[in-house]
Amino acid sequence: MTKPKRASHRFQFEAIGTIQSCFKEKFGIPRQPGLVTGARATIKLADDPDLRTAIRGLEGFSHLWVVFVFHDHGSRKWKPSIRPPRLGGAQKVGVLASRSPHRPNPIGLSVVTLEACRPDAAGGPEIDITGVDILDSTPVLDIKPYLPYADSVPDARAGWAEAPIVRVPVDFSARAESALLERAARTGAASDGYGRLRSLIVEMLELDPRPAFQKRRFPPGSPEAQGTRYGFKLLDFDVKWEIRGAGFRVLGLEELSH
Amino acid sequence: MTKPKRASHRFQFEAIGTIQSCFKEKFGIPRQPGLVTGARATIKLADDPDLRTAIRGLEGFSHLWVVFVFHDHGSRKWKPSIRPPRLGGAQKVGVLASRSPHRPNPIGLSVVTLEACRPDAAGGPEIDITGVDILDSTPVLDIKPYLPYADSVPDARAGWAEAPIVRVPVDFSARAESALLERAARTGAASDGYGRLRSLIVEMLELDPRPAFQKRRFPPGSPEAQGTRYGFKLLDFDVKWEIRGAGFRVLGLEELSH
Repeated sequence: MTKPKRASHRFQFEAIGTIQSCFKEKFGIPRQPGLVTGARATIKLADDPDLRTAIRGLEGFSHLWVVFVFHDHGSRKWKPSIRPPRLGGAQKVGVLASRSPHRPNPIGLSVVTLEACRPDAAGGPEIDITGVDILDSTPVLDIKPYLPYADSVPDARAGWAEAPIVRVPVDFSARAESALLERAARTGAASDGYGRLRSLIVEMLELDPRPAFQKRRFPPGSPEAQGTRYGFKLLDFDVKWEIRGAGFRVLGLEELSH
Repeated sequence: MTKPKRASHRFQFEAIGTIQSCFKEKFGIPRQPGLVTGARATIKLADDPDLRTAIRGLEGFSHLWVVFVFHDHGSRKWKPSIRPPRLGGAQKVGVLASRSPHRPNPIGLSVVTLEACRPDAAGGPEIDITGVDILDSTPVLDIKPYLPYADSVPDARAGWAEAPIVRVPVDFSARAESALLERAARTGAASDGYGRLRSLIVEMLELDPRPAFQKRRFPPGSPEAQGTRYGFKLLDFDVKWEIRGAGFRVLGLEELSH
């Protein structure tokens, strides 16, 4: 590992590893960690004996901070203000009063659940985490243990983000159910069995992952929104879904070709 | 503001501002935020109209994350393992299983209480914060609103850091009491009046800010530790204190010459 360099107020950092996440594109990713408990990822640290030493004792913690780089956040320029999807896109707030990736320094911060720690994995230490909201291939700058006595402020006042999280009802077409069952039979229940994968898709869609302008234009329940179709990449397939009634219906899973 | 550059896994960030903190040297700084509620600082953001816009809406939040650079952490090389002062210096843990500054990428993360936000301050926006554990002149990379529904995990298991925080009794010599009163009369109660300053010193000393080897060698209450003297810079003076009985006694405040 090289050391950070600095010239006046500039600082250079080098990724210590990379995220392997179930989220293969930005669309569909929950906007905060912990909201989709079934969302899994692995932190692959660089193959460096010092990093094996550096994670000793981590396994005693139930939660971790992942400090990462928003490496693929569309526009390369930061935006002084953004329209939080949570507010339906109607209101603007300052980007530093939000958790948007479009920040002056595109550094992300997520608390995740630590599932397993493999310091001696071939190719570098691996850390399995859940509850993630992080895109596949994201560079990791730092991991830190979560310290509840310092990091947990349950009664903090959350400004505009006090707006309740509305969950949209989700169901599955017969074709989507078959695809889930077929995939579970083929891959074995070990990795992403039927129930786990179904829950993951439900948790993702319930939060309505669409951009604010889509939410405004096509609210579930409205006549003109019916049948509007969407899709996102998850694990090794595309999830196709549409607006049906007051919620979303999953239409099918299409395997991605590699 | 310039944009971050990247070459493979390297990322360059530019500070968006600097911390003006009551803590003028590392010795004495609490090892986590929130432990010393009276510790105050101001985030001075760069004088950039975009940053004025970027903090709009921040005032609705009670707590903030400050993402900063450990710019003055002694040795410039990172250490794979460290001896947490919390464990008395006897045990080693991996640096990534700790919040030590000696990390591969020396990025710090502290939740602080937002006291006031002045977007239109001359010279750049200013944000007053308390409960800090951050050294004066620290470069700030990012600020983020604290979102309790995502960031607060009160029941998280904290591995080796479950060790209880032991508080050491603190008293003041008559000379130190006079110095506090004299200073309060001189500066007015507005900034750091008698009670507030006294509480700040008590909160800092109660946590025993000494390095692990000092704690091991000179535990309060032991005969050989009696009268061992220390000092640290706080605000605009040196606080002198010694081990007295089972605790610490503040001996006096000495004004720093500028």
